[in-house]
Amino acid sequence: MRSLSMEIAKVAAGEQRQVADMVAIEEPLEIRLAWSTPKGRATRSISITMRTPGNDNELAAGFLFTEGIIKGRCDIDAIETCGPPAPGSGLHNVVRVELQQDVSVDLGRLQRHFYTTSSCGVCGKASLDALRVAGHEPLATGVTVSTSALTSIPDKLRASQGTFDATGGLHAAATFNSEGQLGPVMEDVGRHNAVDKVIGRMLLDDMLPASNSGMMVSGRASFELVQKSLVAGIPLLAAVSAPSSLAVSLAREFNMTLVGFLRGSTYNVYSAPERLVS
Amino acid sequence: MRSLSMEIAKVAAGEQRQVADMVAIEEPLEIRLAWSTPKGRATRSISITMRTPGNDNELAAGFLFTEGIIKGRCDIDAIETCGPPAPGSGLHNVVRVELQQDVSVDLGRLQRHFYTTSSCGVCGKASLDALRVAGHEPLATGVTVSTSALTSIPDKLRASQGTFDATGGLHAAATFNSEGQLGPVMEDVGRHNAVDKVIGRMLLDDMLPASNSGMMVSGRASFELVQKSLVAGIPLLAAVSAPSSLAVSLAREFNMTLVGFLRGSTYNVYSAPERLVS
Repeated sequence: MRSLSMEIAKVAAGEQRQVADMVAIEEPLEIRLAWSTPKGRATRSISITMRTPGNDNELAAGFLFTEGIIKGRCDIDAIETCGPPAPGSGLHNVVRVELQQDVSVDLGRLQRHFYTTSSCGVCGKASLDALRVAGHEPLATGVTVSTSALTSIPDKLRASQGTFDATGGLHAAATFNSEGQLGPVMEDVGRHNAVDKVIGRMLLDDMLPASNSGMMVSGRASFELVQKSLVAGIPLLAAVSAPSSLAVSLAREFNMTLVGFLRGSTYNVYSAPERLVS
Repeated sequence: MRSLSMEIAKVAAGEQRQVADMVAIEEPLEIRLAWSTPKGRATRSISITMRTPGNDNELAAGFLFTEGIIKGRCDIDAIETCGPPAPGSGLHNVVRVELQQDVSVDLGRLQRHFYTTSSCGVCGKASLDALRVAGHEPLATGVTVSTSALTSIPDKLRASQGTFDATGGLHAAATFNSEGQLGPVMEDVGRHNAVDKVIGRMLLDDMLPASNSGMMVSGRASFELVQKSLVAGIPLLAAVSAPSSLAVSLAREFNMTLVGFLRGSTYNVYSAPERLVS
């Protein structure tokens, strides 16, 4: 369930009408992590994120992976919704991720990880120095895309999104291959969540690293989206809107192709143009 | 400094040109808090947020206030940039907020506060139950705005933003009064930061609660933006784009007027229409 109907007032040129309109659902998702310690099983609430319900398991898996808390699908024993539905919305807003017996979680690190965290973008970076992704090599070429395939993608994303999103309030993300064919489209009020859902789906399907995929996002390209794509091994990130300076820096540092303002037949290439072929 | 020039490739209808283009700057800001404890002065890094440099003091003050860590301007002794500039960018990315001697900070609460936090929107909510703002009363009428004043605001915001933002990558926020006149326009890659900068400026100018102001934002209206406006006592939030379900719920609960899709002479009213007068 991504949207709900609400009674609102629509005003146009001074005329007001009461109508039922669709609004994108935003609800909190709490991610609880359970893992083994020498003293027994530990459970901790490690994240609350505002998200659009749907693909919550993918979101949890993708978040844990792109934030470096788990190394891969094998670390996960089970993902399940937890507790009763929330009063009012009736939605399940808690997901519990059980890690395998042999997977260790450094609680101190986890605490530092989240302690210094604020709003968007740099969840889980204990200090400014840790902002850059540790231990990642520059990306190999992987996927290449023709100009015609690349410029066909935003319309496909919008068409696919249009079937779901009547609200105008949802971001979308999807991978694409060298022919410009889209993978599953994920939607969310938060673009980082949409990207985590896409990466989480691939993680659960054992499709990572996704070196033969590009990632398309409906909005802007922030540092965070470049970082998440990098962790998933995706060598090309394309955005409908503007990238930030740090997104460009990180893409250049790791040889990721970063495309911005991809609209109709026009786009900007900020880094690693060699993956775009004619 | 909100943007920087970068060499990029612009592609249009198959033609490629190398050009210098402006990109919105995104850099981390670390907020350090210093306060008195029975054992002496404590200092803790409490937040790293990705932001666009400029008005960092306002951002820090606004963040601490809208997240409930400080109660008002009187809690603040000093705000200062801290340490050497970052290598590379040359920017100061750390701000230190000294609290007055008599202001106490519950470290346990602070830790819980941030421990469960993830990305956007719900920084500092220790549990789902704590998501709603505690102790706030429904907003009194305060500001009222005519339809003509309201519909004039987005153009003013864009015009004002246009003088700064050549990147297409910055969100903007500003307060407005009942005549539709804007207060200082703040820009940021993150819209929650733009709103925190606006509220922080008012806090430092001793203008809170701002019951005679509305808040205009360039993007969508999330739960978080409604919450921040509510904490600042602002009874009207208008957004160029869509609100989320939880934004509408919270606005209705606290009698805040929430306007969405404010474009030209058209807009939607999601709650408390009585502040819009003809």
